This record gives sequence, structure tokens and C-alpha cells, in this order.
Amino acid sequence: MSTDVATETAWKRRDETPVSDETIRLIDTYWRAANYLSVGQIYLLDNPLLRTPLAVDDIKPRLLGHWGTTPGLNFMYAHMNRAIQERDLNTIYIIGPGHGGPGLVASAYLDGTYSEVYHDIEQDEAGVRRLFRQFSFPGGIPSHVAPETPGSIHEGGELGYALSHAYGAAFDNPDLLVMAVVGDGEAETGPLATSWHSNKWLDPVQDGVVLPILHLNGYKIANPTVLDRIPQDELLDLFKGYGYHPYLVEGGFDGEDPIAVHKRYAAVLDEVLNEIADIKERAANGSLEGRAKWPMIILRTPKGWTCPPVIDGVQVENTWRAHQVPLANARDTPEHTALLEGWLKSYKPEELFDENGAPVPDAVAIAPKGDRRMSANPIANGGLVRKDLRLRDWREFGVDVPSPGATSSEATRVLGEWLATVIEDNPENFRIFGPDETASNRLAPPVYSATDKQFAGEIWPIDVNMAPTGRVMEVLSEHQCEGWLEGYLLTGRHGLFTSYEAFIHIVDSMFNQHAKWLKVTREIPWRRSISSLNYLLSSHVWRQDHNGFSHQDPGFIDHVVNKSADVVRVYLPFDANTLLSTYDHCLRSVDYVNVVVAGKQPQPNLLTVDEAVRHMTRGLGIFEWAGSEKPGEEPDVVLAAAGDIPTLEVLAASEILQKYIPELKVRVVNVVDLMKLQPEDEHPHGLSDRDYDAIFTTDKPVIFAYHGYPWLIHRLTYRRNGHGTLHVRGYKEEGTTTTPFDMVMRNDLDRYHLVIDAIDRVPGLAERYAGLRQEMVDARLNARLYAYQNGEDIPEVAKWAWKGGSEANINDTGGDND
Amino acid sequence: MSTDVATETAWKRRDETPVSDETIRLIDTYWRAANYLSVGQIYLLDNPLLRTPLAVDDIKPRLLGHWGTTPGLNFMYAHMNRAIQERDLNTIYIIGPGHGGPGLVASAYLDGTYSEVYHDIEQDEAGVRRLFRQFSFPGGIPSHVAPETPGSIHEGGELGYALSHAYGAAFDNPDLLVMAVVGDGEAETGPLATSWHSNKWLDPVQDGVVLPILHLNGYKIANPTVLDRIPQDELLDLFKGYGYHPYLVEGGFDGEDPIAVHKRYAAVLDEVLNEIADIKERAANGSLEGRAKWPMIILRTPKGWTCPPVIDGVQVENTWRAHQVPLANARDTPEHTALLEGWLKSYKPEELFDENGAPVPDAVAIAPKGDRRMSANPIANGGLVRKDLRLRDWREFGVDVPSPGATSSEATRVLGEWLATVIEDNPENFRIFGPDETASNRLAPPVYSATDKQFAGEIWPIDVNMAPTGRVMEVLSEHQCEGWLEGYLLTGRHGLFTSYEAFIHIVDSMFNQHAKWLKVTREIPWRRSISSLNYLLSSHVWRQDHNGFSHQDPGFIDHVVNKSADVVRVYLPFDANTLLSTYDHCLRSVDYVNVVVAGKQPQPNLLTVDEAVRHMTRGLGIFEWAGSEKPGEEPDVVLAAAGDIPTLEVLAASEILQKYIPELKVRVVNVVDLMKLQPEDEHPHGLSDRDYDAIFTTDKPVIFAYHGYPWLIHRLTYRRNGHGTLHVRGYKEEGTTTTPFDMVMRNDLDRYHLVIDAIDRVPGLAERYAGLRQEMVDARLNARLYAYQNGEDIPEVAKWAWKGGSEANINDTGGDND
Ligand SMILES: Cc1ncc(C[n+]2csc(CCOP(=O)(O)OP(=O)(O)O)c2C)c(N)n1
Ligand SMILES: Cc1ncc(C[n+]2csc(CCOP(=O)(O)OP(=O)(O)O)c2C)c(N)n1
Ligand SMILES: [Mg+2]
Ligand SMILES: [Mg+2]
Repeated sequence: MSTDVATETAWKRRDETPVSDETIRLIDTYWRAANYLSVGQIYLLDNPLLRTPLAVDDIKPRLLGHWGTTPGLNFMYAHMNRAIQERDLNTIYIIGPGHGGPGLVASAYLDGTYSEVYHDIEQDEAGVRRLFRQFSFPGGIPSHVAPETPGSIHEGGELGYALSHAYGAAFDNPDLLVMAVVGDGEAETGPLATSWHSNKWLDPVQDGVVLPILHLNGYKIANPTVLDRIPQDELLDLFKGYGYHPYLVEGGFDGEDPIAVHKRYAAVLDEVLNEIADIKERAANGSLEGRAKWPMIILRTPKGWTCPPVIDGVQVENTWRAHQVPLANARDTPEHTALLEGWLKSYKPEELFDENGAPVPDAVAIAPKGDRRMSANPIANGGLVRKDLRLRDWREFGVDVPSPGATSSEATRVLGEWLATVIEDNPENFRIFGPDETASNRLAPPVYSATDKQFAGEIWPIDVNMAPTGRVMEVLSEHQCEGWLEGYLLTGRHGLFTSYEAFIHIVDSMFNQHAKWLKVTREIPWRRSISSLNYLLSSHVWRQDHNGFSHQDPGFIDHVVNKSADVVRVYLPFDANTLLSTYDHCLRSVDYVNVVVAGKQPQPNLLTVDEAVRHMTRGLGIFEWAGSEKPGEEPDVVLAAAGDIPTLEVLAASEILQKYIPELKVRVVNVVDLMKLQPEDEHPHGLSDRDYDAIFTTDKPVIFAYHGYPWLIHRLTYRRNGHGTLHVRGYKEEGTTTTPFDMVMRNDLDRYHLVIDAIDRVPGLAERYAGLRQEMVDARLNARLYAYQNGEDIPEVAKWAWKGGSEANINDTGGDND
Repeated sequence: MSTDVATETAWKRRDETPVSDETIRLIDTYWRAANYLSVGQIYLLDNPLLRTPLAVDDIKPRLLGHWGTTPGLNFMYAHMNRAIQERDLNTIYIIGPGHGGPGLVASAYLDGTYSEVYHDIEQDEAGVRRLFRQFSFPGGIPSHVAPETPGSIHEGGELGYALSHAYGAAFDNPDLLVMAVVGDGEAETGPLATSWHSNKWLDPVQDGVVLPILHLNGYKIANPTVLDRIPQDELLDLFKGYGYHPYLVEGGFDGEDPIAVHKRYAAVLDEVLNEIADIKERAANGSLEGRAKWPMIILRTPKGWTCPPVIDGVQVENTWRAHQVPLANARDTPEHTALLEGWLKSYKPEELFDENGAPVPDAVAIAPKGDRRMSANPIANGGLVRKDLRLRDWREFGVDVPSPGATSSEATRVLGEWLATVIEDNPENFRIFGPDETASNRLAPPVYSATDKQFAGEIWPIDVNMAPTGRVMEVLSEHQCEGWLEGYLLTGRHGLFTSYEAFIHIVDSMFNQHAKWLKVTREIPWRRSISSLNYLLSSHVWRQDHNGFSHQDPGFIDHVVNKSADVVRVYLPFDANTLLSTYDHCLRSVDYVNVVVAGKQPQPNLLTVDEAVRHMTRGLGIFEWAGSEKPGEEPDVVLAAAGDIPTLEVLAASEILQKYIPELKVRVVNVVDLMKLQPEDEHPHGLSDRDYDAIFTTDKPVIFAYHGYPWLIHRLTYRRNGHGTLHVRGYKEEGTTTTPFDMVMRNDLDRYHLVIDAIDRVPGLAERYAGLRQEMVDARLNARLYAYQNGEDIPEVAKWAWKGGSEANINDTGGDND
């Protein structure tokens, strides 16, 4: 890590004179220009520089956007510009109140980035017109700080993730300063409320710096904010309690001259940046005692600052009424139109733009140049700085499988061995995130041979595998894990998030937003590919041994498949080698969300390394060794499985069928890449109908044992031939704390029930094998009785493995700390 | 509200002498008994009172549960018992670390409740045996504080909601004390981190009291906790910043005698309860200045306290290793078995149980009696105290509909008028919860004619509709809204949660947990029915005018339908009267989750009050007025719709088809209760196949315009006749900030595309109406061009209504504060 260099170059104190009046004037000029361009985007269709009196038809017919937050955002942006220039800081911004889109677009336009990436929006009057018109307009750009906005890695549509993203961006970027604006309304969300604690993980040497700015403009959509309505000592205590050194800047109220506020803020910003430089220096030279108390700023200004204070006799500025479009009726009377014109003119556009319509030098003087522009920082276009991972051949880490089921492994533990080498070989751009479950999910102990859990809180002698720096990030917040990882990926790095399957639903909405981001960026030519977001969902629905019904939910997959097929991938590896192969693939891929569900309990290994490669490459396949087909003949029944537990049950069912109905031609199919089931034209992984028919037949009964809610298989195969004879077993929302086999029986996914399903569905069997069918019913009852009496599964099931007993006993359920 | 009575009876200071040594002894005895019973549940299959030496076979083969948190929970429970008795407090508990299930079961057993509700678990040796055996055992009870646990309204499986539930329970329960234990790991979650701020809403007169206890046992599953590893001044600042008066009690470390810890904690608890009584008194007599600073307790004790300190040379007590089953290997060597025996004996069971195996009087002396027992408080079995709402006849609030589409309304605003009366008539047991969106979702202004937004922070003169008490609860946290509402419902009250459709995914996992809770309680005879959890999802995918792609997600319905059909209901009313009727139904129902998606923008009213009653009762129906069927003949095509925007588009498509293809027999169907589509045997609302076939035909093309992701309709109708000719249009994950009609066009849900679909699918039309088809293609292009040029929708679409122009122009998109 290039610690020394970083410290020498990026972080300097600057103890000269206070900011000069001239600089303040330039900050204010920039701010006025940004405000003008923001209001213009929200309201103006034409006449962008007000070279003629404002006419009704110059105003957009539908006024869609948000003004309230924007002047504050522009203010912070302007000031940070000044600091970047003076200190040569490497800075990106994250804007929590992302509805302030016009402000960020305005700044990207002022500093020239906008015209560089959107060639038709030039710095002239025609360009300004197009800039205004496109905003929140059909065929134009969204109202938020979206992927379309240069410099953005955070849209801020769904509030709450500003700080998680900011810290995620800062990890392993020792030179980077992340200016993270948090809305005071946003601060009420759960994810944001816990994300202040991210400072308990940041390392002052290895990682960058997050400067949180609480944007205390007092209001949300229709309410005051909590943090604005508590006594000041509580407010400061809160941020001290969160472990920060808070600075409070207040101004702009009761008509206070903005120049005075600029001066106060500029002085505080200098103080804060000096404090950051000090911390960085002390950290670098080893003189920092204990955890760094990073500064943060509370900026209290009026919501909607500089808009008409009163409209139609009602106070608007400094109230919630400024949140969206303060003058929603700008077209309806000449008075309102005049009010809008007056508002626009209050920024003195004639001083801001030259005769061609380009910003005058004064208006952009404080903006930095080149990559130092926050809108042009390559880190915020992660693909530009992303380096492929160095990955060792996973096959060397594969387990030995002399014959299917002859050995057994905890798949995640084997994966952990390989991940340890990923960590070793990529010490600066790969991290594992988890909500206190890396051990429980059995990636540990192996990964801890290569790294520690990073923690900046107090570390005591009793602790193991904890250190100020490390590649594993554990915090008991799925939101934080997801947000940190997203921030890390969006800035060009790699990682994975391991979680209990049920609780990954906690981040359903965050996944949504990230998937939407990825979908949109695919259509933006200047956005470069970033690493995929990889989930590893272990501790899944079928093996929630210590826990019960609340921990049983395989529905994340269903949630995920609603998102664009271009973005989403789902894998269900069923043993150690298939899991290794899956993850090797995931860590190489870009621009996807990969959902991998895999067990952590001891399970029989089924495929050798080479078989796993082939199986994974196809995404699905026939286990010829497991069926009883006759070459050249169609099977009578297809037993298909997706998921580790279903695969075992299908194998066991096949064994029973072969034993008791030797003439039955059973085909065993395993689907590891779920998207293969979809038609070619609905998902890029989809099998051709020809291939699908060859594997599943067009008319034979298919008994499909699926890991999750059964409907998904019907959905994916809806347009396939033979879906009328497809019979799916899966999780039917029946569960509790019980034995593994009782769980599958409760949901009719067990081997015995699969045999019954085959008997019921293969024409002719029902009559001839009523006896076997009854034996299966009895076997279920026996197994249940045994479990109820003994508290563990009946040995013939517990120790079952393909062709004989297994070393993997499903009754063996280690503690989650092992 | 019975404020005065409450204050006189429930909340008293108690300034006598410090807690006597004898009382401390009894607390400790109870604690030992609870700990013994907890360890017994985790480990013992037999020999429950250790009347013979512990044998390997007395130990369960699979040890599944969590010890670490349990001694602390038992400690707090014992102490609260003492306080309840002395002060006659009305108390329920909420346990964040719900994995401490054995502890709560132990206390419910000790105080007798358990035997009252589970008659086979008596207070004798056989009862203890059954109590132990059933825990985490097939056919037994879950490991968590589940619905099966008497006194519980919170399972604590998915961590994070303890305080939200606690405050929800406290609202409108002025006499109630909610003891809310927060795990220090749990405290890292987002929902929990923001829920401390719930004190900014609680009213000290009208509402009850929450006593949060941070259970600082230092560890989670495999890590220390953040709050344990920050300096003490930060810890205290944090809770001061959250607006509490924190008390810190520490003890049990380095072998400290528990008696000393009991003394300290008992003294602090008395101080805290006196402080609460003071606040309550000052609030009642009007002498409380500003917001109440409620006390909270930080209890720092060793995780796993009283278990073997060291096992196999490794420290266990006071580490994360005590989290689950400290002696997971209790069966494998005689030494380990002896260790377990020694641990159990350390509680001196011979002093705790009499010869029959019943707890001796000393062991239960501090437990309160009757309804004062936390495990028996009727409030924690909400149905026992629930009163039906007083609801006025919604039909009096219905809108006038002289003919379909002749008038128009903002449906949610009309609903607001009726809800205002619900508020008036039910001033103590009905609340509306929302993330700063009650106004944006247009329930306001009407509801504010009847009530205010409750807020305990500072209220300033500029504020409107805000007061210390009120029926509307607004906090910018979907988690808080959901958690508060759940707590409110679980304690026998009524309410609804209104949110943007897209962001309701934020509570996907909370919904999961609540739905699971409801499903399980249905099977528990002593649990009484509670009011349904009602969602009102307005600002839906099709009308995200000010926002864009990030705000467009109709997938919550998909998420919801994976849960048990017994619990889940989905409604898509399409105008004011159907929305009124829907909500009337929802507010009367029990034990469901009702998801209602309804627009807030001006829309044509289609059904009169009487028609709405009939349509809602059927759940779906044919709009005869909108089609062109001939009596006695089958239709040629069925145009079906579910949702407000799809219904409009279908009507418009029908009009076009009737005009240009007069001979075509068009049937128009609307589905308002989505579950009607499912087969009878899969959902209680499901239509019979006969009814389904009559409405949808068995073989005619059905063009189904659906509000959400199209797949859901296929899923619901999968087993129906004619699903091969069903063609569904819906949201295809295409969106941005644009006009309403451009949005439907992007997803091919528009009237023109529906006409094209009909032409393509009704045999014979394609050839004969190629011209019309082309006109439709052109109409789409025209509409898009118009929008791109003008920024609003083309008038013929914008002002369209059934049989003539409309007062509702879809271009009218008011600001969200209006
Ligand atoms: C999670 C979430 N819930 C609700 C909303 C709807 N919403 C949009 S803006 C806003 C208010 C934001 O207030 P604040 O964070 O203070 O931003 P600012 O005042 O700077 O506009 C709300 C509730 C949202 N965007 N995200
Ligand atoms: C949201 C969520 N994420 C992860 C888990 C898995 N989990 C179960 S217990 C636990 C640790 C809880 O620690 P703490 O709250 O301190 O409880 P205690 O120490 O009292 O056991 C975790 C992470 C969970 N139950 N819920
Ligand atoms: Mg704000
Ligand atoms: Mg803990």
C-alpha cells in the first residue's frame, strides 16, 4: 500500500491567511451560477438566459423536480471546489438528498465535464437551452443524481445510503476524500442512522476520508426533521456519541447576506480539512492514539434558500413548501410568471454568462480542473480505475471426488480456502462483507489465515482475527454490508456479501436500486463496467438448525428475477467443486448481480473438478450416473433438482425408484444456473427450446425439486414445451426449529414424496406400485416419528449418500462459532 | 382518555428504604431458577432435575439454541418482576435478542402462565421434562421468543425491531410500561439505530412508557459489538444525543458475586422507575417543560454469564463463544458431560424445586400474580383487548358517478375524508403511519381536519397540523412506520401504513416476519385475532411524476404472494368508490396483511357507490357498459385490467376497438381482488374454475393489462383453463422521469398497444385490420413525439375519458405538498 506517498501528497494543512474576500466573491459567483442553472432546469423550456422578458411559453408545462435541497448542495459543492483547488484534493461527492439532481448537473456543466460527456450540451446559449429542457423531460434526464450525472455513484432516490456508499468508496482509497451530504430527513432512516458508525471501521492509514455534512435545512417533504427540532446540546452529543468531532455552521436565516455565511463556512471547512490532514499525518507517523475522531459538519441553512420567501401570502423559503417546485403555478398568472422571472434574475444571470451564453471566467474560477473536478474524478466512474482480480486456478483447491458422494465437505469452507488466496493476491481491492456471519457461514476459519476482520473500535486481548486493517468487514447491519460493498464496487473494486438467506430480504430495496443503476449504466457510453455485486447466501432455508421459521425464506431469488435479465444471475451450486467454480465465475464477471445460494453444512461431494467445470459451463446437465436411462430411449420420468438439499433428495429418490421399479427409466437433471430455464429471448443465459426439450423431454413427467418457492420454476419454464407435465416441489412456507429431514418433509420435498410424485405421474405406475407408494407414505411417518422421539434424523436418511453411507451426517450441526 | 386515573394508579414513586437483602436473595433465587430452566431446555432430554447423575443419554443429540444472551435476559426479567409487584406496574416485555427464547419460556413457566396455556406442561417433574424436551425439538417449540411464547409480541429472530415494536405498543396505552431489551449487536442494525428516536413522538400523558435496556454483553455471534468498544463518554453521549437519560450498570466480571450486581441494578431500577413516575406526574399536572428525557439503562454483564468460564482451555464466558451452545460437545467425553452437570448444579436445583419438581415458593416469590405477570399481560395477546373500530357508512362519502368517467377524483383524497371520521370516532385506537408522505399521498389535507401529526420534538409557529398528540405518525423511516404499526396492532389496536409503492420494499423482510407471525398464531388456540396490517401504496409505479426509475417498482405484491395464502390479500381499486369500499373492508378484517395499491392523481370515477359494493364483493367483474358483447354470444376477446392506470388504458382500447372494428365482441373485465385469480384450493378468495371460465372464457384471447410485473398474472392463473391464450402486459422495468403516457408506452401497456395485441391475437383480425394496426403504431409514435416536444402528454390522451373528454387531465401533477 502506498501509504507514505499518499500522506505526503494528498493531505496537507493549510495555515495561511483566512479565505480572502476575493475568493469569497468567486465562491458566491459560482454559487449564483449553479443556483441559476438549477432553477432554470426545473422551470425553463426556452429563453434560458432571460435575454428577453420571460413569457409563459418559456416555462415548462409540467414542473417536475426538487428545489428545496438544491441551493444547499450547490453551496457545499462551491466551497469544496475552492478547497480542492487550494489543496489539490482528490475528492468525490455523495449526495444523500439525490432529488437535488439539478444542482449536481449544474456544477458538472459549469466545470465543463457535462459538455465533455454530452457533446450536444455545449457551453453556449443553445447548450444551456438543451440543458434546461432535458431535465425531468420526456427523452431527457431524470430528476435525481442518477447514473446519467457525471461524478455520481449514488442516485439518492431511495434515501438512507449516503454514508454507507461514502465509506465503501473510501476503503482502500487512502488519498480519497469523500464529501458525503446527508439530508436531515434522510438521517431519520434506519440505514443512515447506523451508518454514522462506519467510522468504527475506517483505517486512517490504509483508507480514505469521509467528510459527512449533515444538511440541516430543517425540513423533509411535508414535515420538520427530528434533528432540527432537538436542543443543540443533544444534536452535538449525538455526533460526539457517534464518535465524530462535530462543527456547526448556521446561516442564511432572516435575510442574512450569503457572503457572511460563505465566510463562516469557508473558515470551518479549512479547519476541518486541517484536522483531517493532522489525523492523516499522525496516523502515518504512528503517533495517533486510539481511534481517530474524524470531523463532521452540520450545515444549518434555510430549505429552498434564495427562492421567493413568500408566495401567495404563504411562507415558502425556509419551510417544507420549498421541497419540490415552490412556484408550481408559475404559468397561471402574470404575477407568478413575474415572480419566477424575478427569482431567476436575483442571481444576476447577465453577470454570469457571456454573450455566447458561456459561463464567464469569474463564475467558474473556483472550479478545479481535469480529474480534480468532482464531476470528472475517475474514481466515480469505477470501471476506469478497476483492475481485474488476480485469481488462482480454483481447480487446485477443488476436493477429491473418487465417486459421487464418496467424500463430503462443507462447501463454504472449501470456498474459504480459495478466497484466502484471493485475499492474499489482491490485498488492496477485494473485501468480504458480512453481518457477523463470516464464521457462521463457514468461510472462516480459512479466510482468517489470510487476513483479519478490520475494526477501528477498541481491540482487546481476548479478540481473535481482529485488526485495524483486514479484508473482512463485519457489522451487524445488512444495510451497511450492502452499502459499503456497493460503494466499494462503484469505485472500481471487488467483493462479496455473505448473509443468511432469509435476512438478505433486508436489502431487497437496496438491491433494487443497485440493479436499476446497473441497467441504466449499460446504456451510458461513458460509464465503464464495474465488478458484479456478488451474494453468497449460506445458512439457507433448509438448514436453519439453531433457528426456526423466521429464518426460513428463500424468496430473495424471486425478488431478484423481477429485475432486468441483463443484470441478474442466480446460481445454486450443490457441492464444494460447483461452488468454487461458481465463485470463480462471479469474481470475474462485470455489471451483474450474482446471487449464489449454497449450503454450509457437511454435504456429499458429487462432481469432480473437471465435471464441475463442464456442468457449470453448461449451467445444467444430466447426471447420467444417477439415472437409469437406456441409451437411445426416452426416459419415463425426469427428476430435476436445483439446490443442494433438493439435489440430495432427488438422488435418493432416484435410488429408491431404481431399486423398486427397475424397469423405470429415470433421468436425473441438475440445474445450477437457474436462468438457463428461461427462453433464449428472455434471458441471455436461456437454453434454446431445442436443448431444453432434449433435456426435459416435451411430454414426460418432470418432477422438479427446487430450493425455493416452487412458483419460480413454473414462471421460468412458462413458455417451454411440456410445462403442463412439470411438477415442482419446493418451500411451501412450512417450517420451524426441527431436524433437516423433517423440514424437507414438511414441504413435501423429501425423497419419499418425490417417489410418490413419480408414481402418481408416470402413467401406469399408480396402479402397479400402490404398494411402494404406501411404503413411501410409511417411510415418511417413520422418519417423522424417529425425529420426534429422538430429536435427530433417522440414520438411514441422516447418513445416506449416493451408493452407500456417508461421512456427512445431516444430524451434525456445528455451532455457528466453530 | 383516562389520563388522570392512569396517572394516579400506575405511576408512583417509591422512596422507601433500599431493596432489602431478603428481596435481593429472592431475586437471585428466581434468577438461578430461570437460568437452570434455560440451560435445561437447551441441553436436557431427560433427568430434568438431576435427581440422578447426568448420563450421556440425558443430553439431547442435537443441541440447538442460544445461551449467551439468556442469563442477562433472565436477570432483567427477575428484577422487573420485583418492581412490578412492588409498584403494581402494568408491564410487557420486548426482547430484541429473541434467540434468548429459553429464558422467556423459563419465566413464563416459573410464574405459572406456561402451564395455564399449555396444560401438559405442569409444574412437576414430568412437566419440567416436557418443557426441556420440547425446546428446539421436532414437534416442539422454536428456539426464539416466538408466538408460542406467552407474553411475547416480538420474536426477535430478525434483529432490529425491538424498540419500534415497543413504542408501537406504548402509543395510546398510558398505563403501560414496556421493558424493551436491545441487544448490543442488534443495536448495530439500521432499524434499531433510528428507533431510539421514537422518543421524539411519545406523548407522556396519552402514551405509555418505554424503558429501553441496552444489553451490553459485549458480543454478537462471532465479534465484539461496536457499543462495547467505544469509550464510555462516547457511549453516554450517544444516548444523551438520542435524548435519553442513560444509567449504566456494570457487573459480573472477574467472578464478581451476582448478589452485588443485583443490589446495584435493583437500586438503579428503582431510581429509573421513580424518574418515570416523576415525568408522568409532571406531564399529568402540566408542569413538564419541553420534551421528556426518559431514562434508559445500559446493562453491562458478561455474555453467557454463569456458564463454565473456560472449556477445553478456551475462555467461553464473557466471549462470543458463549453465544449459542457453549458446550456443544457435552456428549462426547465424560469430562464434558461432567462440565455440563457441574454447570447445571451450580444453580443448586435442589434448592429450587420441591420433591414433586415444582418450583419452591422462594424461587417464584418475586414473580407477580395474575395479569400483572409479563407473560400473562393481556395486552401482549392483543386480540384480548382489541375493540372493533366504529366505522361510518363509507357510502355516504362516496363520489357521485352519473355515468362512468363523468366525474373525476383523487381517490386517496376521498379516502382521506372518510378516514377523518374514522379518526374522530376512534380517538384512542386508530393511527395512520407514514414516512413523511401522508400529504404527498393525498390523505391530507382531509385527515388533518380531524387530527394532527403527533410530534414530541420542538414545534414552531411555522408548523401546521403538528401537535404533541395526534393520530398521524410521520417519520422518514419505513422501518419505524412498519415497526410502530406492528407493535400497535399486536397490542390490539388498528391502523394503516401509507407509503410510496417502490420504497415499501424497504420493509420486505419486516413484512415477512409479521406474515410468519400471523400464520403461526392462527394455529395457537390461546392467541386471539388482531387487526390486519394494512398498506396503502399510493405514488405508484405509473405516476412517479417528480421522480424516476428509482421510484418505479411494483414488486411488493410479488413479494407478498409468496407468503401463506391464509394471511395475504391484495387489492387494486381503480377509483374513489372502489378505494373506499376496499378500505372499509380492510379496517374490519383481522389476521391478514392487506396490500392496497391505489393512485393519488386525478382519475375518472367509474363506478357508483352501489356498483362499487357489488364489484368489490365479487372481487372482479365484467364492465358490461365498457364492452361490446352481444347477449347470448361469446366474446371474441377479453380485455382485462387490474389497477387504476391499466383500467383506463383498457377502457380506451375498448373504445378504439368498438369504433374501428364494430363487429368485434369485446368483453371488459376488471380484477380488483387479485387473489380471485388463484384457484379455490390455493387461496380462500380463489374463484371456482366454473366462474373463472365464465368470465375469462376457456379459449378466447385474454389481453390482461396489469399494474405490476406481468409474471404474477401468469402465476396466479397457471392452473386455469385458457392460460395459453392469456397475454399479459405490465411493468417491464422500463422507466425514467417522463410523462404518464410515455411511461405506459415504454412498457407496452398503453391503449394503442392493447389494440395491437387484440388485432394480433384475435384470429382473422391481423389480415383484415392491418391498416388499423398501423394507425396504432403511428398513434404511439405521435404521442411520444408530442411528449418529447411539449413535455406533456398529447391532449387526446391526457384528457381522455370514457365517452368524451375528462375533467381529469393526466398532465395535472400537483406538487407533493399540496
Ligand atoms: C426511503 C425513502 N422514503 C421516502 C422517500 C420520499 N422522499 C423524497 S425526498 C424526502 C424528504 C427528504 O428530506 P431531506 O433528507 O431532509 O432532504 P432535503 O431537505 O435536503 O430535501 C422524502 C421523504 C424517499 N425518497 N426515500
Ligand atoms: C438482521 C439479522 N442479521 C443477522 C442475524 C444473525 N444473528 C443472530 S444473533 C446475532 C448476534 C446478536 O448479538 P446481540 O444483539 O448482541 O445479542 P446477544 O449478545 O444478546 O445474544 C446475529 C448476528 C439476525 N438474527 N438478524
Ligand atoms: Mg432536509
Ligand atoms: Mg450482545
